Amino acid sequence: MKRIKVSNNVIRRLPRYLQKLDELNASGVDRISSGELGRQMSLTPSQIRQDFSCFGEFGQQGYGYNVSALRAEIAKILGMDRNFTAVLVGVGNIGHALIDHFSFKHYGVELVSAFDVKKDVVGTKIGGMEIYDMENLRAVVDELKPDIAVLCVPRFYANDAAKTLIEAGVRGIWNFTNVELDIPEGTTIVENIYFSDSLLALGYYLSERIDEMEAKAAKSRGV
Amino acid sequence: MKRIKVSNNVIRRLPRYLQKLDELNASGVDRISSGELGRQMSLTPSQIRQDFSCFGEFGQQGYGYNVSALRAEIAKILGMDRNFTAVLVGVGNIGHALIDHFSFKHYGVELVSAFDVKKDVVGTKIGGMEIYDMENLRAVVDELKPDIAVLCVPRFYANDAAKTLIEAGVRGIWNFTNVELDIPEGTTIVENIYFSDSLLALGYYLSERIDEMEAKAAKSRGV
Repeated sequence: MKRIKVSNNVIRRLPRYLQKLDELNASGVDRISSGELGRQMSLTPSQIRQDFSCFGEFGQQGYGYNVSALRAEIAKILGMDRNFTAVLVGVGNIGHALIDHFSFKHYGVELVSAFDVKKDVVGTKIGGMEIYDMENLRAVVDELKPDIAVLCVPRFYANDAAKTLIEAGVRGIWNFTNVELDIPEGTTIVENIYFSDSLLALGYYLSERIDEMEAKAAKSRGV
Repeated sequence: MKRIKVSNNVIRRLPRYLQKLDELNASGVDRISSGELGRQMSLTPSQIRQDFSCFGEFGQQGYGYNVSALRAEIAKILGMDRNFTAVLVGVGNIGHALIDHFSFKHYGVELVSAFDVKKDVVGTKIGGMEIYDMENLRAVVDELKPDIAVLCVPRFYANDAAKTLIEAGVRGIWNFTNVELDIPEGTTIVENIYFSDSLLALGYYLSERIDEMEAKAAKSRGV
């Protein structure tokens, strides 16, 4: 696939389009205009056309978008057809929740193995997946050559685990540890999912809302 | 606080600044130049100055930033000094992980109560916090008036739970359900933490990297 550099903001909207198109598919909608898609997603039609124009021509003047075709195109752009495989490292609550409830398959990723250090967890099965001893991590990764590691270990162990994984050739780390990993630039793609950042952003917007309401109230009292 | 509209990209960087300043504080650094801060965060000095200029003048020409003072300013901007309170709704794996391992206090939020429907969970304590029956959600929220609800319920129940919370006056929802909540605009701030979007973005960047490497390899073979 020939590639042009696309802004991170556009990339971050693609999964939202995918989600919306899945919903439309599920409710039997087979085509949609950029206007209607925009209305449902709180985006302007021109924003939507601009986003998609980064990847080629998907819509048709006067017809709009074919929902299934557009969904397939976006899935392809996101690499969902590349049969990525993943190992999960650290089966605490978060790791457990991901194995049990997160549909890796739905997003084109096959979870092939999971690891932990706790003796009472190693050897058990979660959601049909056997949990291996962390001691075997390097050997299993060497053998299975997963594309992605889902990193759910405790903070103090985050960088050591990442180092092992990268040395074994893992090219993508999905990082749940809330540690900014110390990784040489250009070696591995790290996608951080920082719960704290999300809560703090909520705090910002909530503060803004409260200030706006108080300002409005003060104004209506003539202060 | 007087407010100007600040772009979402800037807001999303603030927690990263906070994290970095905490690290600097912990390692005894008490002042830092925008150049050095930029180097450590992979941002340009002018980007950093521009981000902070949205909120006033923090640095000093030739001196740089006072780490503690800047940290305090950013914490304030993020609403960390507002004593926000939160209830957690749905103590499955994710909810459990948040109660056990996520330091709400560190981010200025007090977790005051948690709820579930499962009879074997209700009445037990997790991390010192008693889990209440979901039946009492409305009554408890009416009484405690939390600012934030942390929504960790199963998908099918997400919108019902959100409705109850909003009717009871909750102004912010931290949404872990992966459901785009159907909420009237302007009533409640919703901060979504979509695991799927994060994994899909990783898939995009990984695909991009792989394509680049293959293109390079093909070029070096003279294809």
